[in-house]
Amino acid sequence: MTKQELAYHMQKNASEIEDALEELLPSPNAQNPLTEAMRYSTLKAGKRVRPFLVRQFSALFGGDDTVAIRFGCALEMIHCYSLIHDDLPCMDDDDYRRGKPSCHAAFDEATALLAGDALLTLAFSVASTTPHADAAKRCNAVMLLSECSGWNGGMIGGQMLDLLYEDKETDEHILNLINDGKTGGLLRCAALLGCVAAGAGAKEMRAAEAYAKNIGRAFQIIDDILDVLGDRSMLGKPVGSDEENHKSTFAKIYGTTGAFKLAKDYTDIACSAIAGYPGSDLLIEYAMMLLNRKK
Amino acid sequence: MTKQELAYHMQKNASEIEDALEELLPSPNAQNPLTEAMRYSTLKAGKRVRPFLVRQFSALFGGDDTVAIRFGCALEMIHCYSLIHDDLPCMDDDDYRRGKPSCHAAFDEATALLAGDALLTLAFSVASTTPHADAAKRCNAVMLLSECSGWNGGMIGGQMLDLLYEDKETDEHILNLINDGKTGGLLRCAALLGCVAAGAGAKEMRAAEAYAKNIGRAFQIIDDILDVLGDRSMLGKPVGSDEENHKSTFAKIYGTTGAFKLAKDYTDIACSAIAGYPGSDLLIEYAMMLLNRKK
Repeated sequence: MTKQELAYHMQKNASEIEDALEELLPSPNAQNPLTEAMRYSTLKAGKRVRPFLVRQFSALFGGDDTVAIRFGCALEMIHCYSLIHDDLPCMDDDDYRRGKPSCHAAFDEATALLAGDALLTLAFSVASTTPHADAAKRCNAVMLLSECSGWNGGMIGGQMLDLLYEDKETDEHILNLINDGKTGGLLRCAALLGCVAAGAGAKEMRAAEAYAKNIGRAFQIIDDILDVLGDRSMLGKPVGSDEENHKSTFAKIYGTTGAFKLAKDYTDIACSAIAGYPGSDLLIEYAMMLLNRKK
Repeated sequence: MTKQELAYHMQKNASEIEDALEELLPSPNAQNPLTEAMRYSTLKAGKRVRPFLVRQFSALFGGDDTVAIRFGCALEMIHCYSLIHDDLPCMDDDDYRRGKPSCHAAFDEATALLAGDALLTLAFSVASTTPHADAAKRCNAVMLLSECSGWNGGMIGGQMLDLLYEDKETDEHILNLINDGKTGGLLRCAALLGCVAAGAGAKEMRAAEAYAKNIGRAFQIIDDILDVLGDRSMLGKPVGSDEENHKSTFAKIYGTTGAFKLAKDYTDIACSAIAGYPGSDLLIEYAMMLLNRKK
């Protein structure tokens, strides 16, 4: 597996997920700011990392790709809602996201709030009505989506911890708790949704979860490093915004070199967890790409 | 069925739903504002109208009450999240709710935003893991919760329309569209969840939906009338707040007397829809109580 092959697969995935999301979202309607805002913040945006992982794990364990695509779209809607709410003035107060005005900057706060709520809500309708998946699989998908994005160790739990420790000294343990929720929640969800799509067993689910948890940790550390080293055009948001917010990061605790070493260790653990499964080379190449990305 | 009997049943329901919600919500934890805010805005609050309807329709068509209670709790969480987000400064900017400080006033905006998100998210976990209901029923419940509270004719769709028409002249048609989404969405959901809990057929579901849609219209009209006539202690929010916001209401278009007549017509339609089912007397008394309530 080369970098070029991975890039090809990711590009192909992004294009297919874009088409699937277009089908599942409300049609364009200039009269309705709510549906326009939902589309604005979901379409033509992002690398579709989470749907990519859903599909890769589904493929790894022999699942139906159309089911994986649908689960991936539901998860992507949750990811997009979280970015809208994260950017609101009462949260990170970011006027830019992915190189364009964030949702509340392009529309208004009330519309952004409701568009986020609507995307979160729609995700569960999408998952619960997935064709070619029996009711047990659909229910398991709903449960995973809810638990991995919820208050108890999921995405929202991580966001709350992040807010609580914004202006406090933190250590590696707390940062991991924050990251395992905030970033890791949806990545674990992706890997596990792939397993559900494939009807994989408990052993496979543990391996998938270990991979996702550890690339999540590496991903967040690299994000912190890039926030220090990157430039605005590369990240799509103001560089140094974590610094302005007095946020603790791995880059601050260990320096960028020490933080990178830590990210490499997590990447190694992630790759070991799935290396024994034939066909895992794409996921391993993906973990390496995340580690070595420059933006 | 007397008023006193109805009051007894509603009181009993409220107490049982309170216990069930206490079980399903995060445990008290003074260190965690997120979970405290979720509890603050869900427990000891409200009359549990929606769970009451879920259970009544489930009973009417022979359903399992434990399933109905669970579905009712999921729906109540969605109702409570919507109130938290509705009260935020970028929406209605209400500092009071149910006679006490609203969530963002008691905590802060970020915590209120996340607590709302977390309650919405938790609702789907609760519904999708309902004991004693097969996967098909659980999936149908998730689908109903999502669609009735979503962008397309559901609660969020109604809220968006409400914002769009806040400062514009509106007519009965638009007001009905707003109310059918904003208020009617979750009431229809309640009636239909009861049907799902009971495994009711299409004819029963149509009757349940007609009842819920029409009491929803009556409910909102009476709310508008009370906003003009009531006092703060009775409503738990500032009287005349609709007036301050330049909102169009039925009370403004038809006057309070004309609006009451309209509410009575909708109540009659609601009652006729279910009068043929033995055991519907409690639901009919409930519709009459809503119509004649003074707060």
